[in-house]
Amino acid sequence: MEFDTIAAISTALGEGAIGIVRLSGDDAIAIADKLYQGKNQLSDVPSHSIIYGHIVDASTGERVEEAMVSVLRAPRTFTREDVVEINCHGGLMSVNRVLQLALKHGARLAEPGEFTKRAFLNGRIDLSQAEGVIDLIRAKTDKAMNVALNQIDGRLSKKVQVLRQALLETVAHVEVNIDYPEYDAEVMTHSLLQEKADFVVKEIETLLATAAQGKILREGLSTVIIGRPNVGKSSLLNSLVQENKAIVTDIPGTTRDVIEEYVNVRGVPLRLVDTAGIRETEDIVERIGVERSREVLKKADLILLVLNYGEVLSQEDEALFKAVEKMNVIVIVNKVDVEQKIDLNEVKKLNQGRPLVTTSLLRDEGVEQLEQAIADLFFEGALEGADVTYVSNTRHIALLEQAKTTIQDAIAGIDMGVPIDLVQIDITRTWELLGEIIGDSVHESLIDQLFSQFCLGK
Amino acid sequence: MEFDTIAAISTALGEGAIGIVRLSGDDAIAIADKLYQGKNQLSDVPSHSIIYGHIVDASTGERVEEAMVSVLRAPRTFTREDVVEINCHGGLMSVNRVLQLALKHGARLAEPGEFTKRAFLNGRIDLSQAEGVIDLIRAKTDKAMNVALNQIDGRLSKKVQVLRQALLETVAHVEVNIDYPEYDAEVMTHSLLQEKADFVVKEIETLLATAAQGKILREGLSTVIIGRPNVGKSSLLNSLVQENKAIVTDIPGTTRDVIEEYVNVRGVPLRLVDTAGIRETEDIVERIGVERSREVLKKADLILLVLNYGEVLSQEDEALFKAVEKMNVIVIVNKVDVEQKIDLNEVKKLNQGRPLVTTSLLRDEGVEQLEQAIADLFFEGALEGADVTYVSNTRHIALLEQAKTTIQDAIAGIDMGVPIDLVQIDITRTWELLGEIIGDSVHESLIDQLFSQFCLGK
Repeated sequence: MEFDTIAAISTALGEGAIGIVRLSGDDAIAIADKLYQGKNQLSDVPSHSIIYGHIVDASTGERVEEAMVSVLRAPRTFTREDVVEINCHGGLMSVNRVLQLALKHGARLAEPGEFTKRAFLNGRIDLSQAEGVIDLIRAKTDKAMNVALNQIDGRLSKKVQVLRQALLETVAHVEVNIDYPEYDAEVMTHSLLQEKADFVVKEIETLLATAAQGKILREGLSTVIIGRPNVGKSSLLNSLVQENKAIVTDIPGTTRDVIEEYVNVRGVPLRLVDTAGIRETEDIVERIGVERSREVLKKADLILLVLNYGEVLSQEDEALFKAVEKMNVIVIVNKVDVEQKIDLNEVKKLNQGRPLVTTSLLRDEGVEQLEQAIADLFFEGALEGADVTYVSNTRHIALLEQAKTTIQDAIAGIDMGVPIDLVQIDITRTWELLGEIIGDSVHESLIDQLFSQFCLGK
Repeated sequence: MEFDTIAAISTALGEGAIGIVRLSGDDAIAIADKLYQGKNQLSDVPSHSIIYGHIVDASTGERVEEAMVSVLRAPRTFTREDVVEINCHGGLMSVNRVLQLALKHGARLAEPGEFTKRAFLNGRIDLSQAEGVIDLIRAKTDKAMNVALNQIDGRLSKKVQVLRQALLETVAHVEVNIDYPEYDAEVMTHSLLQEKADFVVKEIETLLATAAQGKILREGLSTVIIGRPNVGKSSLLNSLVQENKAIVTDIPGTTRDVIEEYVNVRGVPLRLVDTAGIRETEDIVERIGVERSREVLKKADLILLVLNYGEVLSQEDEALFKAVEKMNVIVIVNKVDVEQKIDLNEVKKLNQGRPLVTTSLLRDEGVEQLEQAIADLFFEGALEGADVTYVSNTRHIALLEQAKTTIQDAIAGIDMGVPIDLVQIDITRTWELLGEIIGDSVHESLIDQLFSQFCLGK
């Protein structure tokens, strides 16, 4: 494939110590040479070497930056193209000026994710590996990083390729059977076809079994704390944040409608939604009636419903239970240090068998039990071992679900004695769906859309 | 000098495409080798080369990152020590985890500016060059960048060294004269001493002549727009921002009490202070009475006072003139498109000869004249050429002022026939003061304080 040469600032914007302008493409080194002034020309230095010099505006002769320039020749590069990284003092003006010079000398400003897209289009990585790269950048916990790294390393890709190979062989056999019904080499029997299909279904199911955990590891568990005023919501929030070091309290440069905090509870990344509301006011209950709060609740993966041990259940409490019916709820009966007025049997009835923990946040009691309850609810007590291949990406999960349906259709067809060439259509469709995971049979517009989610310069 | 090995994240924090963890010190390569897994050991690769591999947590065997590792051996490095740069996918978690591993294996977390401090302590750059590095990172305009780059390149250092050399020779001559009054080689005469001192004074004055411009280029011109409600302050602000592309509207990751915008008016960087107040309300006049607003005015380098052509001067207008007495003011009489009611003679009297421009911001008239007035006021119409050595740093300016005083004291002493050995004290003091600019005779605590202003990882 042929591409033009692209350039972008590849470090986060801000007053950093180092800023990098990255170029990729056939002319990367030639363009960089027009900006570079040093002992040697960049075109003369060996690949994978670093050379000191200045970035100069040729039109004025002005020195624009002092830089360490990395020269990386194809194919052993991120994009499989010639790559130059200009490593300069990290001011906003400074990296921007170097970038502008690169653009002036013939480079095109890269679109978000275009470097990674080239790595994909040039065959260095497949689509699921590329998706792992963005997951890694956005990872909020160690475990999420590991899932992303395994994906970058191609573990999911390899599993998918094994399944596609099995399907391809099956289709080939079917072809033989259709084209040369008299051919004797190996007659495709229903039983053999069924055996292959069963294997594929089983493998897809194994992968999908990790999806719920994988998705939580990747995205965090959207968690909302609700309760009447003065039951201890702020205390609960503070307790969770303090005991479990907040992972990311804020990402510079992004704005959010809803303030979020991440905490890591025994490997479960909780994304505490709308904590600003809890910190600033105690009016969550009033806002339950508001449409927006209902939306927040509806999207939550976990509700922490806080009650007061020292008060009888009120109509408001009952309304809260009604609002979170059939959702993942852990009830926290707080303030067990005061005299009991709440009827725990009534609470249990309203809670319909979901987990219940009693705490005294004042005395720091019960928090461990709460954390265990959270871990139990989502990981049945323990995280899987490191050698599990997690499926964490919604797109992959959807494709695996579809592939499971089509291969099951094939099996049903076989059972009903449907003609082999009709069964073949379902098998081929399964092969295609699995191919979309690794980007083998994906529409261009989807690829554009996927890479546009990347940050600039990646 | 011997130092331990330091490590830090050297790219700005945020979701960037590339994140760098930098190590510097004797053990940099040995420590990095404990994290690195690839084809070769880092200790085996040649200097200034880049090698692909994985960062691994040796305690668990887990892969933590995919990385390109740069190996740079002393002395051709930023710090003059062995340097390793681990160039990884730019997530917050990701770079932080790599940093933690480096710390675990024996590196110490670098203090802000510690890499640059080592470059200074190891003699690669002097103090004024190091100060240029931080100026470059913070530069808001091209011209400010150039001033910083010249400083990094050592232009100011060289000038200072020439002066110090002249003073040193003078002192040496004086010594000869004192120690061996009978010595015949070259007798130090008052006239020769005076000649050298006059040369130094002249050179210091030349440098100081650039200070006002240099300081403006480096820091921007703190500019406040004032005026009664409805005279056109917002229009003026928008006009300045639109005609002159805003340089930096916001630096991600920083918070400010006072909202500022930078615009570049004919090479003059205006730092428009408290523009949020102007954008959101028209109550600046009311706030003039408030202490904080007076403080803002007092610190301003330039006041743009806006009046209404279609209204008679009010007591409020006169109060504004009173508040900005003896300051750098440009009066803008706006709305010349409506019927004149203002008495321009009265305005001129209040303005005491300072610049006055009439505008119709509605019809986009008069803005060019205003911009010219700003340029005239600060650069007398034109910026100096590129080969001027600007002194822009407040610390340098103060030292030059002191050096000028002490050398003038020396000259006065010579004129009054003060004994040579007393004159020598003033000359030596001048030599020391100039030395402080380049860090030659600077107290350790000042050095610590200067470098602590740097960002982390620099």
